[in-house]
Amino acid sequence: MSNSRSYGRIQSAPENFISDELIAEINADGLNDTRRNFLRRSFAAAAGVVAASGLATGNANAAADHPGLDGDPAILKLPKHSTSLGNPVAHTPYGMPSRHEANLQRRESPGLTKKRESGVAFTPLQGLFGIITPSGLHFERHHAGWHDIDPASHRLMINGLVANAKVYTVGDLMRLPSVSRMHFIECGANTAMDWGGPAVPSVQYTHGMLSCSEFTGVPLSLLLEDCGIDKSKAKFVLAEGADGASLTRTIPIERALDDVLVAWGMNGEMLRPENGYPIRLVVPGAQGVSWVKWLRRIEVGDAPYATREESTQYIDLMPDGSVRQYTLIQECKSVITTPSGGQILMDKGFYNITGLAWSGRGKITRVDVSVDGGRNWKTARLESPVLSKCLTRFNIDWQWDGKPAILQSRAIDETGYVQPRMQELRAVRGTRSVYHNNAIQSWRVESSGEVFNVQIS
Amino acid sequence: MSNSRSYGRIQSAPENFISDELIAEINADGLNDTRRNFLRRSFAAAAGVVAASGLATGNANAAADHPGLDGDPAILKLPKHSTSLGNPVAHTPYGMPSRHEANLQRRESPGLTKKRESGVAFTPLQGLFGIITPSGLHFERHHAGWHDIDPASHRLMINGLVANAKVYTVGDLMRLPSVSRMHFIECGANTAMDWGGPAVPSVQYTHGMLSCSEFTGVPLSLLLEDCGIDKSKAKFVLAEGADGASLTRTIPIERALDDVLVAWGMNGEMLRPENGYPIRLVVPGAQGVSWVKWLRRIEVGDAPYATREESTQYIDLMPDGSVRQYTLIQECKSVITTPSGGQILMDKGFYNITGLAWSGRGKITRVDVSVDGGRNWKTARLESPVLSKCLTRFNIDWQWDGKPAILQSRAIDETGYVQPRMQELRAVRGTRSVYHNNAIQSWRVESSGEVFNVQIS
Repeated sequence: MSNSRSYGRIQSAPENFISDELIAEINADGLNDTRRNFLRRSFAAAAGVVAASGLATGNANAAADHPGLDGDPAILKLPKHSTSLGNPVAHTPYGMPSRHEANLQRRESPGLTKKRESGVAFTPLQGLFGIITPSGLHFERHHAGWHDIDPASHRLMINGLVANAKVYTVGDLMRLPSVSRMHFIECGANTAMDWGGPAVPSVQYTHGMLSCSEFTGVPLSLLLEDCGIDKSKAKFVLAEGADGASLTRTIPIERALDDVLVAWGMNGEMLRPENGYPIRLVVPGAQGVSWVKWLRRIEVGDAPYATREESTQYIDLMPDGSVRQYTLIQECKSVITTPSGGQILMDKGFYNITGLAWSGRGKITRVDVSVDGGRNWKTARLESPVLSKCLTRFNIDWQWDGKPAILQSRAIDETGYVQPRMQELRAVRGTRSVYHNNAIQSWRVESSGEVFNVQIS
Repeated sequence: MSNSRSYGRIQSAPENFISDELIAEINADGLNDTRRNFLRRSFAAAAGVVAASGLATGNANAAADHPGLDGDPAILKLPKHSTSLGNPVAHTPYGMPSRHEANLQRRESPGLTKKRESGVAFTPLQGLFGIITPSGLHFERHHAGWHDIDPASHRLMINGLVANAKVYTVGDLMRLPSVSRMHFIECGANTAMDWGGPAVPSVQYTHGMLSCSEFTGVPLSLLLEDCGIDKSKAKFVLAEGADGASLTRTIPIERALDDVLVAWGMNGEMLRPENGYPIRLVVPGAQGVSWVKWLRRIEVGDAPYATREESTQYIDLMPDGSVRQYTLIQECKSVITTPSGGQILMDKGFYNITGLAWSGRGKITRVDVSVDGGRNWKTARLESPVLSKCLTRFNIDWQWDGKPAILQSRAIDETGYVQPRMQELRAVRGTRSVYHNNAIQSWRVESSGEVFNVQIS
């Protein structure tokens, strides 16, 4: 199968439209090379017509390419799937994507970490639609690998500045009043590789530590109240995971009592093992490391805990040599997912530019798109629903004239914050940061149709 | 693993909380049968305490059941997943649910159809959260089985009362401006088995021909305009599938030009093969059979087509012997998914009653819940987002006193339509219908905690 189709709306070459299977079928029916080459040539010619007409609807190539349309008996034959019984229901008790989509995978960036157990697998944003991330393609970032923990033996302890420390079974938690909300989760290190310039080729690697799901769980505030939290002293909570890393993060109490969930559900079903099954913390708007997976303990305290993952890691080195610590919020950000790096526009004419916008501080109110590297901007359409601390899908129409172009998107959230250009971000943050790069992304479209990751001054 | 845990918030017996793995581990560490039986007994005792205290938080059984809490060195040992490296990232390129959730499956109702290729696989609503249905558990209903069609050779033809009949490749369609929207899909025959009385035990079989996803596609109106639809003559369209059934359905033109999509995306990725890959029709609010899968043709006409699936099937036999034909809309309906038939409440006390409501005519505005068979009603909380022609999750708190109870939900949509009681529906529709049963569902909770599907007069 072709790489390009599974990656969405942009094809790398017109020949891809004629499948190897169709060619084989035509050959098997006795059509010779001349006929096959005619098919290829007429398709290429049709693609040229389409390119000139702007909006490509494919009708020009229909007669040449659609079985049965040209009256040739050899290709009037209906495909097998139209003339036979297919697979029964419940063929697999849990369904999987088409074999033709096998190329759409979460992928590692080799060498990014020393061990794959502390690595990253990126979500293929270039091939996704809407705002929901399929759970099978949710990005992964672990510190000591993932386990498939038996929920029957898993417990959540709440201790510290509470009247009654308690231990909850997963069944206890699931019996409490729950809420379901759609939220994005983004690793604080998303787009980290591009601080010093364009380092990776595609949106899967520039922005793929980003996913969005409907999460279901019990508000942490309810559990803290159930344990009798000492509100006069409590200032922070520590969240601790049950993995080998015992990953721990400090969360300010006002946030812990706000919209944080102890979640078991993701996109309608139980969390996947690699995403924290059976329970994880959901900290809407906060960087992913705070959404502690395989959650086993919440401790209520009166000071931040300065754990490993918030003192030597996940800190921002500033130009004056100081470090920002406890940076929690993922600021307003956006990225065009189509067309994006590594894709190829097959011809001039109409394209629907589309991408994602999000803010850790609330709702997206506007996304502007530029096709000339930021000199001119047009406001894109926002698809509904537009939800707080959730991905928002935007799109805008574009007629590509075949000349080089630089595509950018710029998001604005309900606080009025405007996503910065790279040089604006560097002016404040310098160039030695790893985390929290929310700069405007630039994709350069060459006249060949190839799209590259670039940074412009 | 236990059946009950994978089915959500209600456990069938307290022993289920102690996993076989934990028992095995304790045994391996030299604990004898007496100790094991003590564990079991103390858990059962703790469950009794929990039952008496109302809100079950599990702290009572913590000391007996949580490894390390009682100071016994034999069980102070940390679990293996807290002391070892786990699996690496991208362990599987496309992730799957936990092995502990293997019991949560779409399931057939044996004997419902003569062949499994024309059968039904029901969605396990009792084990799901929120509104999104995981694509792997989306219900299935086929007429001639499903195929995994190669999108490179698939085409959509639009013909009939149009100026220019056209054939679109999947690539052509995906290049056009698309929209993403969350909608429910319900088979017209959902809850069909219960017209004559309670026939099946659980919500998976009473209401499981229901799913909800984020769908992405191009508006059909855009394609019809691209082909130059003759608006003075066009009154209906025919949608035709590429499966062996050549399934065909008539759709009124005003609906075809409204919110109908030619969709390729479902929950962020390409449609699953059993749900119409690579393209299907999305007809928001309409019964599932109209959402033609493996869509290959749209014909524009001036009269309904009276195809097999709308003349001998999918018609409603009325009390006077006439039949309703072309019943398209799924009227306002709701069902409690927890507690529901086949589940067992393990003790008295607090429960969060939760379920789903939907309407083919727009948004849900209110859901009322009764625990006494419809004598008294309380208004439930609606979870956000509340979207048009989409599932809406509701929930309400309940203190069960241990006496028999009959749980019901009643939904109201934005047109003011109130979901009918069964006898109200029968007064209009008689008892010989198959399709479009949207009556209020009753679940009887016995004093034993067992829950049964019942109908009350």
